[in-house]
Amino acid sequence: MTTHSNDQPIPIHPNAASVAVVILAAGKGTRMKSDLHKVLHPIAGRPMLLHLVASAGALQPARTVVVTGAGREQVEAAVAPLGIVTALQAEQLGTGHAVAQARAALAGFEGDVLILYGDVPLVTAATMQRMIDRLHGDDTPAVVVLGFRPADPGAYGRVIADAAGRMDRIVEYKDASAAERAVTLCNSGLMAVRSTDLFALLDRLGNDNAAGEYYLTDIVGLAGADGRASAVIETGADEVAGVNSRGELAGVEGAWQAIRRAQAMADGATLIAPDTVWFAHDTVIGRDVVIEPNVVFGPGARVDDGATIHAFSHVEGATVGKGASVGPFARLRPGAELGADTKVGNFVEVKKAIIGDGAKVSHLTYIGDADIGAGANIGAGTITCNYDGYFKYRTVVGAGAFIGSNSALVAPVTIGAGAIVAAGSVVTRDVEADALALVRPPQVAKPGWAKSFRDLMLAKKRG
Amino acid sequence: MTTHSNDQPIPIHPNAASVAVVILAAGKGTRMKSDLHKVLHPIAGRPMLLHLVASAGALQPARTVVVTGAGREQVEAAVAPLGIVTALQAEQLGTGHAVAQARAALAGFEGDVLILYGDVPLVTAATMQRMIDRLHGDDTPAVVVLGFRPADPGAYGRVIADAAGRMDRIVEYKDASAAERAVTLCNSGLMAVRSTDLFALLDRLGNDNAAGEYYLTDIVGLAGADGRASAVIETGADEVAGVNSRGELAGVEGAWQAIRRAQAMADGATLIAPDTVWFAHDTVIGRDVVIEPNVVFGPGARVDDGATIHAFSHVEGATVGKGASVGPFARLRPGAELGADTKVGNFVEVKKAIIGDGAKVSHLTYIGDADIGAGANIGAGTITCNYDGYFKYRTVVGAGAFIGSNSALVAPVTIGAGAIVAAGSVVTRDVEADALALVRPPQVAKPGWAKSFRDLMLAKKRG
Amino acid sequence: MTTHSNDQPIPIHPNAASVAVVILAAGKGTRMKSDLHKVLHPIAGRPMLLHLVASAGALQPARTVVVTGAGREQVEAAVAPLGIVTALQAEQLGTGHAVAQARAALAGFEGDVLILYGDVPLVTAATMQRMIDRLHGDDTPAVVVLGFRPADPGAYGRVIADAAGRMDRIVEYKDASAAERAVTLCNSGLMAVRSTDLFALLDRLGNDNAAGEYYLTDIVGLAGADGRASAVIETGADEVAGVNSRGELAGVEGAWQAIRRAQAMADGATLIAPDTVWFAHDTVIGRDVVIEPNVVFGPGARVDDGATIHAFSHVEGATVGKGASVGPFARLRPGAELGADTKVGNFVEVKKAIIGDGAKVSHLTYIGDADIGAGANIGAGTITCNYDGYFKYRTVVGAGAFIGSNSALVAPVTIGAGAIVAAGSVVTRDVEADALALVRPPQVAKPGWAKSFRDLMLAKKRG
Repeated sequence: MTTHSNDQPIPIHPNAASVAVVILAAGKGTRMKSDLHKVLHPIAGRPMLLHLVASAGALQPARTVVVTGAGREQVEAAVAPLGIVTALQAEQLGTGHAVAQARAALAGFEGDVLILYGDVPLVTAATMQRMIDRLHGDDTPAVVVLGFRPADPGAYGRVIADAAGRMDRIVEYKDASAAERAVTLCNSGLMAVRSTDLFALLDRLGNDNAAGEYYLTDIVGLAGADGRASAVIETGADEVAGVNSRGELAGVEGAWQAIRRAQAMADGATLIAPDTVWFAHDTVIGRDVVIEPNVVFGPGARVDDGATIHAFSHVEGATVGKGASVGPFARLRPGAELGADTKVGNFVEVKKAIIGDGAKVSHLTYIGDADIGAGANIGAGTITCNYDGYFKYRTVVGAGAFIGSNSALVAPVTIGAGAIVAAGSVVTRDVEADALALVRPPQVAKPGWAKSFRDLMLAKKRG
Repeated sequence: MTTHSNDQPIPIHPNAASVAVVILAAGKGTRMKSDLHKVLHPIAGRPMLLHLVASAGALQPARTVVVTGAGREQVEAAVAPLGIVTALQAEQLGTGHAVAQARAALAGFEGDVLILYGDVPLVTAATMQRMIDRLHGDDTPAVVVLGFRPADPGAYGRVIADAAGRMDRIVEYKDASAAERAVTLCNSGLMAVRSTDLFALLDRLGNDNAAGEYYLTDIVGLAGADGRASAVIETGADEVAGVNSRGELAGVEGAWQAIRRAQAMADGATLIAPDTVWFAHDTVIGRDVVIEPNVVFGPGARVDDGATIHAFSHVEGATVGKGASVGPFARLRPGAELGADTKVGNFVEVKKAIIGDGAKVSHLTYIGDADIGAGANIGAGTITCNYDGYFKYRTVVGAGAFIGSNSALVAPVTIGAGAIVAAGSVVTRDVEADALALVRPPQVAKPGWAKSFRDLMLAKKRG
Repeated sequence: MTTHSNDQPIPIHPNAASVAVVILAAGKGTRMKSDLHKVLHPIAGRPMLLHLVASAGALQPARTVVVTGAGREQVEAAVAPLGIVTALQAEQLGTGHAVAQARAALAGFEGDVLILYGDVPLVTAATMQRMIDRLHGDDTPAVVVLGFRPADPGAYGRVIADAAGRMDRIVEYKDASAAERAVTLCNSGLMAVRSTDLFALLDRLGNDNAAGEYYLTDIVGLAGADGRASAVIETGADEVAGVNSRGELAGVEGAWQAIRRAQAMADGATLIAPDTVWFAHDTVIGRDVVIEPNVVFGPGARVDDGATIHAFSHVEGATVGKGASVGPFARLRPGAELGADTKVGNFVEVKKAIIGDGAKVSHLTYIGDADIGAGANIGAGTITCNYDGYFKYRTVVGAGAFIGSNSALVAPVTIGAGAIVAAGSVVTRDVEADALALVRPPQVAKPGWAKSFRDLMLAKKRG
């Protein structure tokens, strides 16, 4: 099976100095109108901030520091499990001030510092590596800035540089001449700087501007005043798209999905309607997989070669074996493991259950906390009763067993291999292999009853 | 909870004269190829015509007259419940002739008349108010025309006006000079005119043109001949998009949805894939609501703060309480009222039922005509049997009750608080609080039966 | 009912010579990364190659030859049932060589040869007929080439022709002058040639080029060297889009769907969100049909006038009668035949079953291998138990019968007209007309049991 995700292996520069990553995440995100911190809003099922952490992880950073502010508790809780340090920016005094808060966390670190923004989540590891590599170019720039060319440069700061990326300066839009405003290369704000330079330059930043803030961008000018050149490298505008509103969140989600869909197709999957398939950040799709319109993947899904995910399916935390058929209208929840050539059909939910090779669960069924043997056939309307309100119990169905329609299997219970459960049975005791289990009272007939009932009801309806 | 819909409150001009609204709806709509009158085709679940009536309603019109023609019975039936008057245009003799039919219905009315088109449904109340306000501008125009700039002006009539909107004339495309054709401001047909002017001008309309029709537009020229200027105000092309075919209907629906989706996001809801969420005209969405891909709202839905609507859900006439979780694959029908922190899961339908706070209905269940108590747990595959073919009956489940999977609750029936119904039970009599109800015949085992059956069937298959 | 599909009747030129069709399908399709041959990947549920065969079929060709190469077994298996001949191109020596392999299969044929490409599937019958007609134009061209104007002409061969389509030559991009590269009319590769000319010209093809291949295009130059002019006719770029990757496959699928959706709307169906409706190649949609967002049609579906297909429905091999209502969340499988004014509701699957006029199957039900009488009402959660693991059996429900919720009908079984089955019954024996069938053990109550159980479990949870 081909495995792949958006996080491609990238070539790590062999002689690269040690790298530290600083991610600015102090902004409140007021325009999100949310109780959730902006950088924790998910893209492809993973918080924005963690996309950045994962991408930067490919550079094997010696340290990663997240600068927090408002809503710091949420951010700290999100990164603490990853062993990532946070630094508090207690007052909002500008981007330069924010980076300066990482000083203590970077004490003793010597190497390259990559400065990222928690709300600019799609920057790839390859671009980050290019920034670091450029910092070690022959012309040893003081600062490397990541530039981009937006469709509408609008009020972005313009990057004044030559064709080789040797940067003269960054000029804010409001200070720019007409000629400078005609420049289309803009400043994304992302930077790479040596640690030895970074804090020395930050110490010299002033806040003599209308907002009274310390701007990180100004370190380029300070380095220039020392006679040290800086450099710009360029990337696509989509990669540095920022998120300040739910609309922009949706836009970045859409950009991520478009990349992932194209990749799945390039790797040999058919997406009949690519725009209607939503991947999670870690979805793995095999070769000759067919995905019909309207399929949603939650985190933790893997689909092996030759499987088909029919329309209107929802797959999360589940594996789908080779040649399996899922849906339409199937829900696979975490812990669902479908073997090769299995079939999970319409209006079927599977959770924490192993479905053996070739087994079929075709219609209107709930399989939870169960082991279904190879080649078993689970009839329409079957329910595994796995919960008593307090604990969950396991159902085991042996290989080749046949569960009649509309049965309830009350766990813990075991149906032996090759056994048959008659339709409509409520099975509370184990069934031995090759046996028939039957729970069925006699059928009673009351001739003419329906007609009398009908007459009565119609009379009642008439009043 | 933030509430909002497309019908924003608009500032009503304090000294506005009384307003009457005339909506032209006599056109057959042949290109729709429909038995339903064109203006009754719905946008966002509400007939086009009623969108206009609702928007115009914000101006608190003294009278509203709908001019009907072909298919008048359908139109009359749609507006009659709103107390709106109709006027018949028996012959199709042009827009001027159509407006003239409203004369009797407007007898005695003195004020401003706003002329709208039933197949141009997206005009906002704010634009209508701007038209009225302009009519009362210092230059007291005789007629105010609503102009727009389409991507391709094509054969639209051109509005010849100065930058301040003082209009010289409207020139039909076929009569326009090259210079006039280069004008991009076009005539939408919508107008505001004082009632005293309107009918006097209509009386003077001629039909000396190729089609032999009376054109409303010509009143601008007639007023001009009297030395009275007219004015134009401008709006976006999307707002005056007309519907003459099913394709245009879909286009207008799409435009409406795009506005509504942007608004929901601006108000603090996450739409992971905005283009796959369909709102109805009156959907109300709270803050920090998350809406996954592929959710359809029918009329009458409200989702409170912090609730999540998972993928593939259909919500109509239902309320979803704070922090509740709906879907994936859930169907909420009219009268479903989900309390705070409730869960309605996959392949579950809820209709005319109150689901108490914290109650869970997680899988493959039909809840109709029921009261489910707070914290109750309804097992997978439960069915409320609410219908006997003639009447509907109610099911009551007490707080904290536990309904075992695959049960049928035959209404009218009451399950007491804290009671348990064993899996697979058909409950026909009330269950008292804290009791166990059990409907279960003994399980019978026939050892080896399945093997014999298999042998027999395989022999039969071999023939 | 209006019936229509993408295969419109086209006017066949009355004096047309006999036509043979050669379809090149030898290319491996490596970029598809698939075990399935490229030309067998489906568009709208039908293999690309068979789209071409169907379109060409409108010209009633005397012979159709598919030239195969790698993966020939798959291609042969696909066309053999249609009585279509294949010819093997054992070595990949260019398009001219490929067409030459059809010589034996066309032995004795005299007439026009149309040369198509198996991976260019959207060419219409009308365009094919135009190519043949042009071959018989007054200027009797030796070859007719199909040209198109792509958004980016890039490296396509340029067609040098006058305004009347009289073609001077085709020039490969690499050989083209700046002036020739400025030409926007490009060569699609599709051709029409008389059989008498075709093989004579192919015999004279050389392979004196960088790739050492025999190029079909070169026959234009060879004819020209004989003093015989050729001609070009033009078509839209979408129609000649080729498929070399899964991304292009999705693009062609999207183009096909866009055409089909527009056609359905033009014919009088409402598609609320056209981009979310997927038709199959043979879907038939009536007038005043409403299709809500997110509906997928598989092959063999027909929807009659006035029916509504609600959101999230999947319809394949099924017919939906006049005024019927399907979904939301309905699955109609092959052999489902829904009568007029029937209702199939949410989480319902119907397969090989006739649903009589006015019958209702509203919730959470599986109906397979069944005849449901007119006006019958099938309760929520009903399952027809149609399979014993070896054979399928039929369920018959009479007109006006009422099946109580959560019932299992164990086939073969017949429920008489007007009969009632009580909720939760497992019906294994026939029920006579107007009778009540009841399978229900007594309900047992254990007062206080639930409270004791709860206390026990809570103690257990505490440890």
